[in-house]
Amino acid sequence: MAKPNAKAAPKDAVLVTGFEPFDGEKTNPSWEICERLPREIAGMRVHTCLVPCEFRRAIEVAAGAVERTHPLLVISLGQAGGRARLGIERVAINVDDARIPDNTGHQPVDELVAANGPPAYFATIPVKAMAAAVRAAGVPAEVSNTAGTFVCNHLMYGVLHYLAASGSRARAGFIHVPYSEAQAAGHRDSPSMAIDTMVKGVVAAIVAARENRHDIKAPEGALD
Amino acid sequence: MAKPNAKAAPKDAVLVTGFEPFDGEKTNPSWEICERLPREIAGMRVHTCLVPCEFRRAIEVAAGAVERTHPLLVISLGQAGGRARLGIERVAINVDDARIPDNTGHQPVDELVAANGPPAYFATIPVKAMAAAVRAAGVPAEVSNTAGTFVCNHLMYGVLHYLAASGSRARAGFIHVPYSEAQAAGHRDSPSMAIDTMVKGVVAAIVAARENRHDIKAPEGALD
Amino acid sequence: MAKPNAKAAPKDAVLVTGFEPFDGEKTNPSWEICERLPREIAGMRVHTCLVPCEFRRAIEVAAGAVERTHPLLVISLGQAGGRARLGIERVAINVDDARIPDNTGHQPVDELVAANGPPAYFATIPVKAMAAAVRAAGVPAEVSNTAGTFVCNHLMYGVLHYLAASGSRARAGFIHVPYSEAQAAGHRDSPSMAIDTMVKGVVAAIVAARENRHDIKAPEGALD
Amino acid sequence: MAKPNAKAAPKDAVLVTGFEPFDGEKTNPSWEICERLPREIAGMRVHTCLVPCEFRRAIEVAAGAVERTHPLLVISLGQAGGRARLGIERVAINVDDARIPDNTGHQPVDELVAANGPPAYFATIPVKAMAAAVRAAGVPAEVSNTAGTFVCNHLMYGVLHYLAASGSRARAGFIHVPYSEAQAAGHRDSPSMAIDTMVKGVVAAIVAARENRHDIKAPEGALD
Repeated sequence: MAKPNAKAAPKDAVLVTGFEPFDGEKTNPSWEICERLPREIAGMRVHTCLVPCEFRRAIEVAAGAVERTHPLLVISLGQAGGRARLGIERVAINVDDARIPDNTGHQPVDELVAANGPPAYFATIPVKAMAAAVRAAGVPAEVSNTAGTFVCNHLMYGVLHYLAASGSRARAGFIHVPYSEAQAAGHRDSPSMAIDTMVKGVVAAIVAARENRHDIKAPEGALD
Repeated sequence: MAKPNAKAAPKDAVLVTGFEPFDGEKTNPSWEICERLPREIAGMRVHTCLVPCEFRRAIEVAAGAVERTHPLLVISLGQAGGRARLGIERVAINVDDARIPDNTGHQPVDELVAANGPPAYFATIPVKAMAAAVRAAGVPAEVSNTAGTFVCNHLMYGVLHYLAASGSRARAGFIHVPYSEAQAAGHRDSPSMAIDTMVKGVVAAIVAARENRHDIKAPEGALD
Repeated sequence: MAKPNAKAAPKDAVLVTGFEPFDGEKTNPSWEICERLPREIAGMRVHTCLVPCEFRRAIEVAAGAVERTHPLLVISLGQAGGRARLGIERVAINVDDARIPDNTGHQPVDELVAANGPPAYFATIPVKAMAAAVRAAGVPAEVSNTAGTFVCNHLMYGVLHYLAASGSRARAGFIHVPYSEAQAAGHRDSPSMAIDTMVKGVVAAIVAARENRHDIKAPEGALD
Repeated sequence: MAKPNAKAAPKDAVLVTGFEPFDGEKTNPSWEICERLPREIAGMRVHTCLVPCEFRRAIEVAAGAVERTHPLLVISLGQAGGRARLGIERVAINVDDARIPDNTGHQPVDELVAANGPPAYFATIPVKAMAAAVRAAGVPAEVSNTAGTFVCNHLMYGVLHYLAASGSRARAGFIHVPYSEAQAAGHRDSPSMAIDTMVKGVVAAIVAARENRHDIKAPEGALD
C-alpha cells in the first residue's frame, strides 16, 4: 500500500508482555525476560509491555499496547513458580478463580473473564512448532494444557478475546516460565531457569511462531 | 416390598462410568471403583458402565448407557497415573491429542472432539462442593483444571456435548483417580490410593453433586 | 528345650515403636499403625511403644521398652510427610540436625547422636527382602537411603547403638510411612496412604524380617 | 613478583573431578563444569580430572590425581538427574548397590566400598557454609543427606577413605548437579540448570570451602 515517495513501510512487529511481581516476590522473570529481548526477532521489531498483576487492568494495558504497536504476534509471558520448563500454553478458559488476591487485593472466585465470551480460546500461535523450536535451541519446553485460573489465564483469554472482537489478524498466545535462579536460590525448594536461557527460548519460540503459519503435527498431548 | 398392582415410580439414577485398562496396565482403578459402588447413593439408583479406552467408541458407549438409564447425574471416572488425589475436573477442551495410541491403535493428533462443538465445556456438576465433600470424608481431593488431551478429556467433552445436543437435563462431570496401590506396588515410583478410599470419595462426591444444585463459592484456583 | 512341668517358654517378641504427633499435626500415622497391629505376627508377640518426638528421650523410651520386652526384632516407624511409599531405611547417620524444634523446643544443629559412636549404622533387618515382601502384599514400598537428620534418624541410630552396646542379638531397623489420608485431605497437597494399607505393609515387612536372617540380593539402589 | 633465581613456592591447589557420561547420556554436566572452571579460585590453582563411571577405577583415577597435584581440597562433582539444585553432600556410606550397570557392565549389589572401612564418612568440607555461599551467589543449592549408592557415593566414600588412609590433610567432599539444559531439552521432563550457573555455584562453593575451616551453624537438616 506504500505510496510513491512514502516513508519506509512500518516494520512488522511482535508485542511481548511481561508481568509485575506478585505473590510476595520482588521480581518477575516474565518481565526480566522482556528487558533482555533483542530489538528485532525474525525481522520483526520487538515491543515490550509491562502488565500489572490485576484482573481487568492487565487486559486493558495489553490491549492498549496492541493498539499502539499493531503487532503480527502477541506473546504474553508469565511466571509459573514450580514448573521446570517453558510451557507454551494451548488454551485459556473463561473463568477467574483466584487462590490469592491480585496486586490490588481483588480476588474473584468463579467469575467469567468475558460475560459473553466462549468457554475457551485456543492459542492462535503454533504451540507445538514453538515447543519443538525451543527445545532445538537447547531450552527445556513443553506444551501445557492449563494456564491456571489466575491473572495469567485471564490475560491470555482476554487478549485472544480482544483480538477476536476487534477483527485483528494478529496471532497470540502465552508462555509460562519457571522461577529465576535468584528466586529459587532464595526459596530453596523449586526448579528454576537462568533468565538468559529463558530469553533464548522465547526468541526461538517467536521465530517459530513467525515461520509456522500452521502448527506441525506432533503428538505431545497429556494422558491426564 | 412393593405392593401388587402398584407400579413403583422409577427411581432417580446416577450413571457412573469407568474405563478399561490402558497403557500396558492390567487393571484400571476407575472401573474397580465402579465394581464396588453401593446400589444406591443419596436416594439414587447407581448404574455403572464400562467404557473402552477408544476415541469415539468411548462416547458412544457412555451415550448408550445414558439413553438406557436416564440419569440425573453422569459421573465419569478415569485413571490419572502420577496424581496423588481425586481430581474433580473443571473443564474439558475440544481437542484430541494422543501421546500414545488408544486401545485400538488409533492416535489422533490435534483433532477436534466435535467438529461443530464449542472450544470447551465446563462441568455441570458442582466441582468445589464435591471436592470439599470428598475431603470432609477424609479423602484427599482437589479441583483440577485440565483433564489432559487423551480419552478421558475426550469422554468428558463428549458426554457434555451429547447431553447439550440432546437437550438432556442431566448434569455431568469427570473425576480423575490415582493409581491403585496394587499398580503402584508394581511400578514402585508413583503416588497411589486404596480403592476403598476412592470409593468413599466418589460416593461423597456424588452425594454433594446431588445436594448442590449450584456450586459453593470457595477459592480453589491454580496460579498457573 | 522346655523341661517337664516347666512353665511355657516366653514367646518370641517383636517391638514396634511409633511416634507422637509433631510439626503441628494432631495425629501421627506411625502410632496409628501401632494401634491397629495384630497381637501376633509370624509367631511373635507384638509389643508396641509410643515414643515422644524428642531428642534423647525418644531413645530412652525405646531402650526401656527393649529391656522390658526382650524382642527379637525392633521395628521403629516414623512419619515422612511427602513420601508416597513405605520406606525401609538402609542406614542411620551420627548427626542431629533439626530443621524445626522437637516437641520440647530443642533444636540441635550438627551435633552427634552418640559422642563415641560410629559415623553410621546400617539396619540389621533385611531391607530388600522386606521391601519386596511389602510390595508382594500390594503395598507400595522402597528401600530408602536416608532417614533424614531429625528425630527419626536419631531414634534409628540410637536403637542400633543401644543394641550394639548392650550386646543384644535383637535386629533392628526403621520404616518411614506417608501421611495418612486424613492428614492429606486436610493439607491438600501431598501423597498419602490408608492406615489399613500401612498396617498390611508393616505386617508383611515384619514377617519378612523374621524369615530372612540374611537379606536377598536385589539391585534396588539409587543413582544419586 | 618472584625474584630471579628464586624457585616459586608451589601454589595451593584444588582438585575438581567430573564424571564421564553414563546411563545412555552423551554428556555429563559434572565434566562440562570442570571444562569451564577458571584456572584459579581463591588463590588456589585449579586441577581437573575426568573420572570414569566405573566402580573401583573411579577411585583409582581420582587418587592418582591427588598424588600428582597435592591439593588442599578435593571436590568431586556428579550428575543427579532429576534434582533441581546443587546438592552439597553431607555423607557417603560404605555400600555399592547399583541399580544399573556401570560403564564396564559391572553391577555390584550390596557390596562394601572398602572391606575394612567405617560405615560412612562425613564430608570434611563445610557443607553448610558452601550451600549458603552458593545461594548467596544466586544459585539454588541445598545440603543433601544421601549421595545414592552408585558410583557417585562410591567415589565420595573412596576419596575420603583414601585421604584418611594416606594421612593426607586435604579436605574433600562431593557436589551433585542437575541435568544440563541440553539434557533436559532432550528428555523433556526434568529440572535442569545452565552449565554457566553451575560453574558459578561450584566456584562459590570452593571459595567457601577454602575460607571456612569449620562449618557454620545453620539448621538445614531434613525431617525424613
